[in-house]
Amino acid sequence: MVESVFMAELTWPEFAAKVAEGVTVFLPLGTTEQHGPHMAMNVDVVLPTAVCERVARNVGGIVAPTIPYGYKSQPRSGGGEAFPGTTSLDANTFSLVVRDVIRSLGTDGVRRLVVVNGHFENCWPAVEGVDLGLRELRRDGIRDMQVMRLEYWDFVGRDTLDRLFPEGFPGTELEHASLLETSLMLLLRPDLVDMDKVPSDGPAQFPTYDRHPVPEGFVPASGVLARAQGSSAEKGRLLMDDHVERITRAVRAEFGV
Amino acid sequence: MVESVFMAELTWPEFAAKVAEGVTVFLPLGTTEQHGPHMAMNVDVVLPTAVCERVARNVGGIVAPTIPYGYKSQPRSGGGEAFPGTTSLDANTFSLVVRDVIRSLGTDGVRRLVVVNGHFENCWPAVEGVDLGLRELRRDGIRDMQVMRLEYWDFVGRDTLDRLFPEGFPGTELEHASLLETSLMLLLRPDLVDMDKVPSDGPAQFPTYDRHPVPEGFVPASGVLARAQGSSAEKGRLLMDDHVERITRAVRAEFGV
Amino acid sequence: MVESVFMAELTWPEFAAKVAEGVTVFLPLGTTEQHGPHMAMNVDVVLPTAVCERVARNVGGIVAPTIPYGYKSQPRSGGGEAFPGTTSLDANTFSLVVRDVIRSLGTDGVRRLVVVNGHFENCWPAVEGVDLGLRELRRDGIRDMQVMRLEYWDFVGRDTLDRLFPEGFPGTELEHASLLETSLMLLLRPDLVDMDKVPSDGPAQFPTYDRHPVPEGFVPASGVLARAQGSSAEKGRLLMDDHVERITRAVRAEFGV
Amino acid sequence: MVESVFMAELTWPEFAAKVAEGVTVFLPLGTTEQHGPHMAMNVDVVLPTAVCERVARNVGGIVAPTIPYGYKSQPRSGGGEAFPGTTSLDANTFSLVVRDVIRSLGTDGVRRLVVVNGHFENCWPAVEGVDLGLRELRRDGIRDMQVMRLEYWDFVGRDTLDRLFPEGFPGTELEHASLLETSLMLLLRPDLVDMDKVPSDGPAQFPTYDRHPVPEGFVPASGVLARAQGSSAEKGRLLMDDHVERITRAVRAEFGV
Amino acid sequence: MVESVFMAELTWPEFAAKVAEGVTVFLPLGTTEQHGPHMAMNVDVVLPTAVCERVARNVGGIVAPTIPYGYKSQPRSGGGEAFPGTTSLDANTFSLVVRDVIRSLGTDGVRRLVVVNGHFENCWPAVEGVDLGLRELRRDGIRDMQVMRLEYWDFVGRDTLDRLFPEGFPGTELEHASLLETSLMLLLRPDLVDMDKVPSDGPAQFPTYDRHPVPEGFVPASGVLARAQGSSAEKGRLLMDDHVERITRAVRAEFGV
Amino acid sequence: MVESVFMAELTWPEFAAKVAEGVTVFLPLGTTEQHGPHMAMNVDVVLPTAVCERVARNVGGIVAPTIPYGYKSQPRSGGGEAFPGTTSLDANTFSLVVRDVIRSLGTDGVRRLVVVNGHFENCWPAVEGVDLGLRELRRDGIRDMQVMRLEYWDFVGRDTLDRLFPEGFPGTELEHASLLETSLMLLLRPDLVDMDKVPSDGPAQFPTYDRHPVPEGFVPASGVLARAQGSSAEKGRLLMDDHVERITRAVRAEFGV
Repeated sequence: MVESVFMAELTWPEFAAKVAEGVTVFLPLGTTEQHGPHMAMNVDVVLPTAVCERVARNVGGIVAPTIPYGYKSQPRSGGGEAFPGTTSLDANTFSLVVRDVIRSLGTDGVRRLVVVNGHFENCWPAVEGVDLGLRELRRDGIRDMQVMRLEYWDFVGRDTLDRLFPEGFPGTELEHASLLETSLMLLLRPDLVDMDKVPSDGPAQFPTYDRHPVPEGFVPASGVLARAQGSSAEKGRLLMDDHVERITRAVRAEFGV
Repeated sequence: MVESVFMAELTWPEFAAKVAEGVTVFLPLGTTEQHGPHMAMNVDVVLPTAVCERVARNVGGIVAPTIPYGYKSQPRSGGGEAFPGTTSLDANTFSLVVRDVIRSLGTDGVRRLVVVNGHFENCWPAVEGVDLGLRELRRDGIRDMQVMRLEYWDFVGRDTLDRLFPEGFPGTELEHASLLETSLMLLLRPDLVDMDKVPSDGPAQFPTYDRHPVPEGFVPASGVLARAQGSSAEKGRLLMDDHVERITRAVRAEFGV
Repeated sequence: MVESVFMAELTWPEFAAKVAEGVTVFLPLGTTEQHGPHMAMNVDVVLPTAVCERVARNVGGIVAPTIPYGYKSQPRSGGGEAFPGTTSLDANTFSLVVRDVIRSLGTDGVRRLVVVNGHFENCWPAVEGVDLGLRELRRDGIRDMQVMRLEYWDFVGRDTLDRLFPEGFPGTELEHASLLETSLMLLLRPDLVDMDKVPSDGPAQFPTYDRHPVPEGFVPASGVLARAQGSSAEKGRLLMDDHVERITRAVRAEFGV
Repeated sequence: MVESVFMAELTWPEFAAKVAEGVTVFLPLGTTEQHGPHMAMNVDVVLPTAVCERVARNVGGIVAPTIPYGYKSQPRSGGGEAFPGTTSLDANTFSLVVRDVIRSLGTDGVRRLVVVNGHFENCWPAVEGVDLGLRELRRDGIRDMQVMRLEYWDFVGRDTLDRLFPEGFPGTELEHASLLETSLMLLLRPDLVDMDKVPSDGPAQFPTYDRHPVPEGFVPASGVLARAQGSSAEKGRLLMDDHVERITRAVRAEFGV
Repeated sequence: MVESVFMAELTWPEFAAKVAEGVTVFLPLGTTEQHGPHMAMNVDVVLPTAVCERVARNVGGIVAPTIPYGYKSQPRSGGGEAFPGTTSLDANTFSLVVRDVIRSLGTDGVRRLVVVNGHFENCWPAVEGVDLGLRELRRDGIRDMQVMRLEYWDFVGRDTLDRLFPEGFPGTELEHASLLETSLMLLLRPDLVDMDKVPSDGPAQFPTYDRHPVPEGFVPASGVLARAQGSSAEKGRLLMDDHVERITRAVRAEFGV
Repeated sequence: MVESVFMAELTWPEFAAKVAEGVTVFLPLGTTEQHGPHMAMNVDVVLPTAVCERVARNVGGIVAPTIPYGYKSQPRSGGGEAFPGTTSLDANTFSLVVRDVIRSLGTDGVRRLVVVNGHFENCWPAVEGVDLGLRELRRDGIRDMQVMRLEYWDFVGRDTLDRLFPEGFPGTELEHASLLETSLMLLLRPDLVDMDKVPSDGPAQFPTYDRHPVPEGFVPASGVLARAQGSSAEKGRLLMDDHVERITRAVRAEFGV
């Protein structure tokens, strides 16, 4: 059989052997969400999975199946639920999924877990899911599971951003379906990007508040919040290398692997 | 961009266009579960996804992302939660995931959904999830969503079973990591099967009741409930063709597509 | 006072004394559901209660109150929720009831419990309820409660079925309000059966999938899924004797009582 | 078949016919709880069921199955959960049961429901269950279901109490397993009462507050909160007649039946 | 900084120091609810907070922030949800709030807690919240937290009531926005009472049952259930003194403080 | 009676009259959380309440009671749950509170609501609570409630920040118990600040990830994440004026008030 970094491609005895050795497990959190007219809706699944795959290789870890449905998209960070195709869970549902997966892994003996989020809105329900999962394990007598939880995009150097945005980094908050994600997708899945369809109705001009229900025109019609022009696989490579190296370093520092 | 049958590989305008045409959406339900020492743990993800992919092509449908964590494995049907690597959700969690995905798709305008289960234990929490999802849509004023829900293995002919089991079909209940699943995996992902590791400790001899907690020796140590010897890609092809043809026919009959 | 096998007919000191002796408690799971035009709606309460009563006498056990509202009836196994009088709980509600009753009994010191299901659809939410109940007890420091969980109709011999169905057993799946249940009711509560009203619109011809919402004509109008003609108290006696003897034997084997 | 006032003893067409005529349904709420060393634990099931049966006969109504597991017993009103045999549900579980039963009955067309509580602690979770049930029905478009909710013991005249307690009525709050309940059980199920075992450790002297966890000696060791001496079937008859007459009158006044 | 009896006015080191000394914490439960045309809607917040403040001073305790949204008002005890301004939580929500606050305080080391309810309808969901909170703490290994739970109005002497109601006390059940609450508010917040607006449409004449939905005219239009005429700050002083003295005595007796 | 901007200080007819006029309601979200050794734990209650009070005066609105227990503090934004006194709710609990309050207000006729968050961690569970509340109202037929949701600290001008931080603004993420909050408290509640106790162990040096459980030394021992030196009431005035003016402007723009 294939030697695989993906947990789901192992047999159970192979998995059991790795757990016995203290393997670090990576859990990617994605969603199915609009990413503009120029990209497929699996961006938030593809990217954290790819990051996890590379970091796991670096540290001898394995990658659990990516959660493909995440927390509800918000207008100011992902365009919102009104876009067709954005398919999401309630916060409590998402937290329970994370809780149950952590409880299940912990019961199997996993003691080092890195939760790698690839969809901004997942962040807080994931925090809650981790807390609930560890609470349950604790009550089952398992008190030594260690969890790191991170957004992969936070692992990037100032110099990388300067190279990618010579005119200044607009900030991650509008980075939905924009230059960073588009470049990473051009690197990983160019078949799922069509640069001819990159829209020019951004960047979004959001107020500093939410509105419910979301008014007409609150979000750019394309769903692209900043600008995707100028994206390239080369830029994606720069970014990916930075993400992987920095997350690898952090995991090694924390878990001693 | 690629022409894809997978919803997550579409852009949102492509998805919106298909929904406007009344597309049939397939939702595969899988899990991450031990499947013996000779197969990877993604069997229940790979198989329903492959079935959905083929049927969707036949009827012009699309396939939503497969749910990769399912309901808790039971000793008599999947070996149970004690096997390392089996990673599962509570029933309520799983039902809420199905509910939320259905609500989300229905709100986007999907009106024909086929829920294709690939993990036995998912069956009942999926029934509940469908009921809860339609209840929510109904209360939001959407009353015309149509759902079919099925286990793919129920779509097989007597003649196919007779060819696969010349000495008699042992019944689906013990068909976990056994001849049918192994043959299908040999067809689809031979890299994830190692026939040299097929165990011979089955078939399981279960009583007609559950025991909680599960006693020692209740389940074959290998996790294979029946027998996987004699599995082949050719048999997998026979089965897959039967599944796809019969499900295609049923979907066409019900949805007129 | 009466010497009773029913827990609810004991005083609390009598119950406490039995628990101190390690009594086996039986918990029947029923529902209130249509059973054709010829039988009352309490079939799934009467039958498992009667089975439990007899087995409990055999092994010196006691019978907890039967849960009278079960999980939602499904078209292919019980006719579905559209029949007036079928009165059901959501899956989560039913699981929580089972969980709480098990927690309560376990906290009182009960260590041997047999959950006897009399309504097909209860099966899976009961599995979940047992798991949740034992999880709670475990977290309260109670780790030695033993549970058997069963459907009473699975305890029947080939020979009995051959005598009841000389032309071949149609399978339990359509056995709703049909020969087996009707015969048992004729044995136990003939006052609640009117053989003159046995319908002849069955057996049901179900496809291998569910449909939601349930289409017109999916289920026989009578609610009887197979055939009830030929039912008799004598056949009921044969069946009941087989159920009781086989369950008694299993409980003795497992619990050493 | 028997002509029955119990819904569960009707066939579904009989039930449907009654619903079509606007039948009033009675839902008794009970529990399984210690009632002293002299009475069985089904007092809170037997009494509201008997009241409902009699009132239903008076007004042409029917009685749904009694809920046999209620909300957790409290020390000051029922002795508390520490008594063996007291078997209870969490408040949310109990409310969900009531919610689901009401939703199910309302969906079937029932429009007049009388919820008759026989266990003090059920009162508030029942209030919530009724509210949640009507909320769900309202969202399903059913806005005309009418519910009365009552504790049967509140339907008693001053004169009756004066006859039962010539030295003054001690108040309902301590009436657990005491004169009123014991007399009613002597009327209805004398086989489940043993007057020789009536204890004399009451009446309880409770402070005006709860203590959690419950301290030693907070509750009389017998579980009887007031006094049961002097109970008689004759007194039970007086009480029962008063309850039935007054509840009948109230139902007639409210529902015009 | 101010020396304060209110926990929220302490710094965390001050709080930690008090906890280390075994401080008794008081948790007032209020709500936001109509209290007639003559009083503000914060009566059930002001009163239990004031009681706690005074008792805490007496015993060297501190007062946690008052919960300002309580369980749904009922017609027979608070006028019901139909009154504008009455702003309430579902029972489960309220119980979870109480559970979480208790878990949080217990985790911080608090071992003596007095839950002081100021809104009748909170009583039972508070009981449940206390039970759930202690259950969670127990499962986290904290078994020695002691809780008292009380309604402040139950701490009043016969002689006080005789002085306040020379013509006889009508009972607490109708004491909503009536003489007792009005007098206490005149004592504490006379700026929030307008005696000129005291209505005269009471006292309410309630039947001994609930009605859902609430019929027209079931509740006095003013929301005042008994009579508020004759309220005075002086009477409020009498009452408050009695409440504070009696609760202080009870807390001292139970907790030895 | 007092003319008040606080909803809880109105009578119900006064509230009803304001609702009839289309009043804008402000709902402040706070928590009880450590804010360093120099400030009380009610900072996140005092500040959003004060902001709401001032904006409400500007636009003729009213302020609903502040929610005093919020979502769990996180190490990187509030120091985390390990600090004594930080008293928090699970995410689901907090979302349900927000949901229920919104449902209750909406049912009463409120159509313009501004949710003003004063505790960073509340942000996402509040988003969910708003979504759930509007979902419930929608299902009850109320579709025209408008909600704005905001963090008050996002309403500040570049020039104000430049004046407050002449050496550069460190970013809001570390602004816990630091210069901004301390200055605002010096303005509003100087009695609850002790500048002599301002610690100097900050600013915190956090990695770009969470760790669960939180390791020793992850958070500054004082709980102050940045620096509070240099705080003053004058700076608080500058900030408060900016917050109030900008939020007032936004509310006017959105709601036309």
